[in-house]
Amino acid sequence: MTTIDATHAPDLQSWVSSANDPASDFPLQNLPFGRFRLEADADWRIGVAIGDQVLDLRAAGLIDSNDMNRLMRLLPEARRSLRHAMVEGLRAGSPQQAKFQAALHVQAEVELGLPCEIGDYTDFYTSIHHATTIGKQLRPDNPLLPNYKWVPIGYHGRASSIQPSGASFHRPNGQTKAPDQDVPSFGPCRRLDYELELGLVVGRPNPLGQPIAMAQAEDHVFGVALFNDWSARDVQGWEYQPLGPFLSKNFASTLSPWVVTLDALAPFRAPFSRPEGDPEPLDYLVSPANTAQGAIDIELEVWLQTAQMRAAGHAGDKLSQSNYRDAYWTVAQLVAHHTVNGCNLRAGDLFGTGTLSGPKPEQGGSLMELSTGGKKPFTLSSGETRTYLEDGDTVILRGYCVRDGFRRIGFGECRGTVLPAVRF
Amino acid sequence: MTTIDATHAPDLQSWVSSANDPASDFPLQNLPFGRFRLEADADWRIGVAIGDQVLDLRAAGLIDSNDMNRLMRLLPEARRSLRHAMVEGLRAGSPQQAKFQAALHVQAEVELGLPCEIGDYTDFYTSIHHATTIGKQLRPDNPLLPNYKWVPIGYHGRASSIQPSGASFHRPNGQTKAPDQDVPSFGPCRRLDYELELGLVVGRPNPLGQPIAMAQAEDHVFGVALFNDWSARDVQGWEYQPLGPFLSKNFASTLSPWVVTLDALAPFRAPFSRPEGDPEPLDYLVSPANTAQGAIDIELEVWLQTAQMRAAGHAGDKLSQSNYRDAYWTVAQLVAHHTVNGCNLRAGDLFGTGTLSGPKPEQGGSLMELSTGGKKPFTLSSGETRTYLEDGDTVILRGYCVRDGFRRIGFGECRGTVLPAVRF
Repeated sequence: MTTIDATHAPDLQSWVSSANDPASDFPLQNLPFGRFRLEADADWRIGVAIGDQVLDLRAAGLIDSNDMNRLMRLLPEARRSLRHAMVEGLRAGSPQQAKFQAALHVQAEVELGLPCEIGDYTDFYTSIHHATTIGKQLRPDNPLLPNYKWVPIGYHGRASSIQPSGASFHRPNGQTKAPDQDVPSFGPCRRLDYELELGLVVGRPNPLGQPIAMAQAEDHVFGVALFNDWSARDVQGWEYQPLGPFLSKNFASTLSPWVVTLDALAPFRAPFSRPEGDPEPLDYLVSPANTAQGAIDIELEVWLQTAQMRAAGHAGDKLSQSNYRDAYWTVAQLVAHHTVNGCNLRAGDLFGTGTLSGPKPEQGGSLMELSTGGKKPFTLSSGETRTYLEDGDTVILRGYCVRDGFRRIGFGECRGTVLPAVRF
Repeated sequence: MTTIDATHAPDLQSWVSSANDPASDFPLQNLPFGRFRLEADADWRIGVAIGDQVLDLRAAGLIDSNDMNRLMRLLPEARRSLRHAMVEGLRAGSPQQAKFQAALHVQAEVELGLPCEIGDYTDFYTSIHHATTIGKQLRPDNPLLPNYKWVPIGYHGRASSIQPSGASFHRPNGQTKAPDQDVPSFGPCRRLDYELELGLVVGRPNPLGQPIAMAQAEDHVFGVALFNDWSARDVQGWEYQPLGPFLSKNFASTLSPWVVTLDALAPFRAPFSRPEGDPEPLDYLVSPANTAQGAIDIELEVWLQTAQMRAAGHAGDKLSQSNYRDAYWTVAQLVAHHTVNGCNLRAGDLFGTGTLSGPKPEQGGSLMELSTGGKKPFTLSSGETRTYLEDGDTVILRGYCVRDGFRRIGFGECRGTVLPAVRF
């Protein structure tokens, strides 16, 4: 478990002045990792965000390779040493300012890619509020399945189609069947949705056959990013029995460029508890540290910018807001559960948390929730209405941590745009 | 679609004499690809099996890199040229014999690895016989779900835990809940099963957003191997709703070392048709070539060697036999379906066909079928009985094609052994 240290001190200032803006996602206390390249580059470089700049870690002499998956395998102590070295070089008054200055680039002028090579991608289902709301639509009498409070439900997803923030994708075509149809039909998805998730990026691997215990689980997580698991609800409804979602999910997902380390998130940990009357998890999913501070207080937002808004220079409407603290299973529990059968994790593996909806109806992390399965259209500030996504819509996820006495730690944004379906 | 040419002529003999044995899996007409290394090697080399030997393709001057995933991206014409060049060098009387001879190694003396770096792994469910038998156990009144005859059902699986043939793995621990229990319990899986599958290895990639049509689908498949998708049935029963199998499958899978190319399988193609009265697939899953010869006639066998048999020098019992011709969906249909929504495939992606059971009860490709969900133990030649797998059991999958007027084309074997569960 990470702890608060001198790198979290709120009065720590950087000689990169934009990092000292209280509204910045990327103060000196954050230093999230990502990959970037300049216009002339073929290969990715490793960078950390600082204010509106990005620091080239290799050029600054802090690392000797631009292999992010290798860097992510660092032991927790080595990772913390690197954090301290970055803070030392970037703090106001650092004797290394000149050297680091030469390794800075303006974030808006570089290309930000996926933060690493993604190995296996697993999607979980950790929001009991999401599971219950969706369950009510499908099974009004029995919304939450009996395994939900015992098993951190997860399934494997598609890694190849995970795109960096800013990319667009075509509305998928597929088979769908309405209840009143006898046979399925083929064509563009009509219930295209987003899912507000966090992406947990695995750092240290475990060998096949060697489970990771709760006490060590967080040592294997490099950090946290924003993640949008786009979903074709009509395709999903027809295809998903009995083996789970497939083409309804694997046409595209979007991952934000910056991975915020668990070290940076140390001040925002919160106790993990369950509602009165819910069962205690089985022993392999329990640890004292997890009970004391297994949750993380991360505010999350979904914004929608339609093509009409974009043309009018409008940044979009906020559709909902929720908090990762409300998840039913913690980061450590996901790692311990995923490996309890001996399954091996590798650096660069990605866990999606599943849609992070809050307890209130307006806190749904997907349109399926906000529009009650497409039955209740809502109106945007532009006067347009939505149930599901239309072509040209851009969805933007944002996340940030705030706590009195600490600097704001932000996640930047995760942005993707829907293009029309490919014609058949 | 591949065609029969001079490389399939049955009278073609090799100067590697073991390849001319009619019982060999690896005659000159086969030439499956794999990766091997000598004792002193750190890196894998690309080889093809020929009789009881393996030809080092780079040492023979046929390729200039040992990157199998790169080789698999070859265009079909280039792949066929390579096949012709291999046959030319290995045929009896070849002027290149001396050069190729220097690139030969005894198969039994080298280490055979996974044939490539595996990207995304997808498991399908193409045997209607398997789906029906399993469905009967779960839903006696409604064994086959309504989507089965329309959708080539598939889901994403775990790539990290795919092991090469010969490896062993620990019986997984996990949560299970019997119907008469109020709460789940944790411990070693008690219903450990194998699944007899073929693994289709993707060669040529497609870009995200560009579906692959039926007519081009097979050009994207490099070849076919044997695949065992080990399954923890008791874990699966408790965890799989609503998002599909997860820990019940991702603790281990086993892939055979040799990938038999679709070119080598050209003589064993068969018409693809459906039982009278079944619906025709939707248009995107139909092509004239697929109807004419979309199926492949591959005989498949499952063998079980218990620890007791092994100690007695007994090779094991054959548990069942089936044929890939009986699958409900073809190779081309799996590719076309997987990409119809724009999902991108990459070289090295693996498709499991799903358990390949035949129409007769004794042709079940898993113990869940052969023991009727564990209710009917059967007796082995050693006098031992089985419902599910015991610690020390080795499961061996075999496959081969035979047709009058052609040489036998074999797949070698896919072997894995169950070790006791890790203690908690």
